[in-house]
Amino acid sequence: MSDGGSLPGERVVVCRIGHRPGRDERTTTHVGLTARALGADALWLEPAAAGRRATVEDITDRFGGPFEVSVPDDPIRRIGRFDGRVVHLTMYGEPVADVVPDIRSGQRERPLLVVVGGGKVPRQVYDHADHNVAVTSQPHSEIAALAVFLDRLFEGRELDRRFADADRRVIPQEAGKRVVDA
Amino acid sequence: MSDGGSLPGERVVVCRIGHRPGRDERTTTHVGLTARALGADALWLEPAAAGRRATVEDITDRFGGPFEVSVPDDPIRRIGRFDGRVVHLTMYGEPVADVVPDIRSGQRERPLLVVVGGGKVPRQVYDHADHNVAVTSQPHSEIAALAVFLDRLFEGRELDRRFADADRRVIPQEAGKRVVDA
Repeated sequence: MSDGGSLPGERVVVCRIGHRPGRDERTTTHVGLTARALGADALWLEPAAAGRRATVEDITDRFGGPFEVSVPDDPIRRIGRFDGRVVHLTMYGEPVADVVPDIRSGQRERPLLVVVGGGKVPRQVYDHADHNVAVTSQPHSEIAALAVFLDRLFEGRELDRRFADADRRVIPQEAGKRVVDA
Repeated sequence: MSDGGSLPGERVVVCRIGHRPGRDERTTTHVGLTARALGADALWLEPAAAGRRATVEDITDRFGGPFEVSVPDDPIRRIGRFDGRVVHLTMYGEPVADVVPDIRSGQRERPLLVVVGGGKVPRQVYDHADHNVAVTSQPHSEIAALAVFLDRLFEGRELDRRFADADRRVIPQEAGKRVVDA
């Protein structure tokens, strides 16, 4: 992360593919907010999911960044041309514990693109990916898989990341809620 | 886990509250599947989310268990009467890294109930909880928070859990998909 953050390594981008309008509005928002909260620098959304952009940007405006959201015309093509390593999270891939040390050391030198799908993922994504990575070989949630992957990539340091230009900040409490102006 | 699994400690139950019909169908399903895939033993759904039960049970039928889904009439009351420790995941709570070692040692002796909310969570949940726990103080996703919490509770061992009575099993691959009859 080059500016404002304190996480080690190069830029981490999350690309969400397979968004089904209507059905996936909330889950795509969750992917975006999880990416921001757990240390990624940017999010790519498909044109079909462009309506989610404002929701994620609104959270960044209030709780801080930097975190960029963009909507490439052809995300699959952008994945194929990414100048860095590409990881695709899928229940069919290799166990996360086996591959994350190598991915982490690569991310110290080159940007990392993390692709998460919904239902059907085009075959090209498996082919473009340098690693197909499974957070369990069980069906569950691309949001959960992204969260565990980022927590392991950053070894928990993402939880202490400080966000710049926030309007407000939450102060941890044993019970109740405390939010202060930042 | 008492039968079929290999995770240490007592029973872990996940309770999903705050389900908004229509809007939260997918996210409640993701909470349920994440609970199952990442080592919990059971899921409680609110009556409003009862329609999600079949989806989660269908995955358990195909990919194995044990994993129980139930729909208590009054989940908030059940939380208050739970015979074990209660953790509520909320961005307003104490940092997960600070509290998880104590929660883990408690779970070796007594069952653990993990409550995850959606939008508005009733004040009683904060009061009933022995720990209000934050997976970052940033707004993101109850699915992501649950995933990171369970991965840290079980220290990654949940990823190697073997499921009983599965019809099929995914064999990890560098690329492509391989599914075999179990």
